[in-house]
Amino acid sequence: MSAVICTVDIVLLTLVGEELAAVLLRREHDPFQGALAIPGGYVHPEDDLSAHDAAMRVIKDKTGIVAPYLEQLATFSGAERDPRGWSLSVAHYALVPYELLAARNDAAVHVVPLSQLGTLPFDHNEIIATALERLRNKSQYSSLPCFLAGDTFTLPQLQRIYELLLGETLNKVSFRRKMSEMDVLDPVDGQFEAAGAHRPAQLYRLKAALRKTLTLLERGL
Amino acid sequence: MSAVICTVDIVLLTLVGEELAAVLLRREHDPFQGALAIPGGYVHPEDDLSAHDAAMRVIKDKTGIVAPYLEQLATFSGAERDPRGWSLSVAHYALVPYELLAARNDAAVHVVPLSQLGTLPFDHNEIIATALERLRNKSQYSSLPCFLAGDTFTLPQLQRIYELLLGETLNKVSFRRKMSEMDVLDPVDGQFEAAGAHRPAQLYRLKAALRKTLTLLERGL
Repeated sequence: MSAVICTVDIVLLTLVGEELAAVLLRREHDPFQGALAIPGGYVHPEDDLSAHDAAMRVIKDKTGIVAPYLEQLATFSGAERDPRGWSLSVAHYALVPYELLAARNDAAVHVVPLSQLGTLPFDHNEIIATALERLRNKSQYSSLPCFLAGDTFTLPQLQRIYELLLGETLNKVSFRRKMSEMDVLDPVDGQFEAAGAHRPAQLYRLKAALRKTLTLLERGL
Repeated sequence: MSAVICTVDIVLLTLVGEELAAVLLRREHDPFQGALAIPGGYVHPEDDLSAHDAAMRVIKDKTGIVAPYLEQLATFSGAERDPRGWSLSVAHYALVPYELLAARNDAAVHVVPLSQLGTLPFDHNEIIATALERLRNKSQYSSLPCFLAGDTFTLPQLQRIYELLLGETLNKVSFRRKMSEMDVLDPVDGQFEAAGAHRPAQLYRLKAALRKTLTLLERGL
């Protein structure tokens, strides 16, 4: 039995304005040295409690970010995907509000809109496409998109994020009913956002207990 | 970097009467020699094109079955799950009609109702629970349960399978509309099943092109 190369790769997604973008880093070593690729690294059996733990470590070490929501995506494997040999990568995806990336202002962290990715090393385009599909499916029936909003947000802002992910406009009344059904948001006391000529909008944040978990809808949006 | 043990494990699910059951095999080697466990084995980089390919090989070698539908479930990993060391198992699940297992009549293949599993080796109980959750979720909005039906079946039989998986009774008219919307079934020419005092029921089978893929509903059942 020859050895299998075991790695983790992470699709770190954020919203830049109204466009989904992925975090890419320049590869320091061969193969594909110098190319932009999604963050990844070897599993370290001596340090990591699990592949999930390895993914947390890699994100933290390579981007300085503690991702609020990290989920296993799928495992990509085979003889062809890595020129070093038969490899197996446990891919994860994480969602981060853009303000978290902007605050770090790290020149090594490239935030690239999904429409401008070009051809990435390994099977990274396929991994990102799989993450995008998962994100879109889960947005139908869960609180997942909330992780792309900042610390506080208005309901119209959150609805816009759902709409961008789902690629369709949503009815305001039924969107608010579904959000209320999920019971994931807390109004921020006395916090309103001025909205031009409109009545100031209430600001919300994710309930503290839910900042690392998903809440699911019985039926989709 | 120390080596990671790379395996695949497969939850092979079937319906025995009205109960979901898993295929278990007696383990030939340590650890847990002699215990019943889900089929699994090492990834063979020299033979397997991918982890999916490894799972197909393990099912075929250990049960003689070519699973009509096999899907990656999740990867389970860590230092604690296998006494041999830090291990990573790419878990898959497959659905097989019981008639396929019954036809083989292989004494080594134990078909155990999920309610009678007891405590299995490794994290196999957790892997099975994850498969069950995935199956139930996907049954909401896909043709997945069709893989548990035999080669041919009536619509009432198929509806009953969906109901068992979803744990709720379904409206006959809307069930039939959803099935027709998915467009996955072909009536079997001139084949009817006598149904007691009732009008004989038309037999159906999965469309040939769909026997290894899933069809999804836009909105769930």
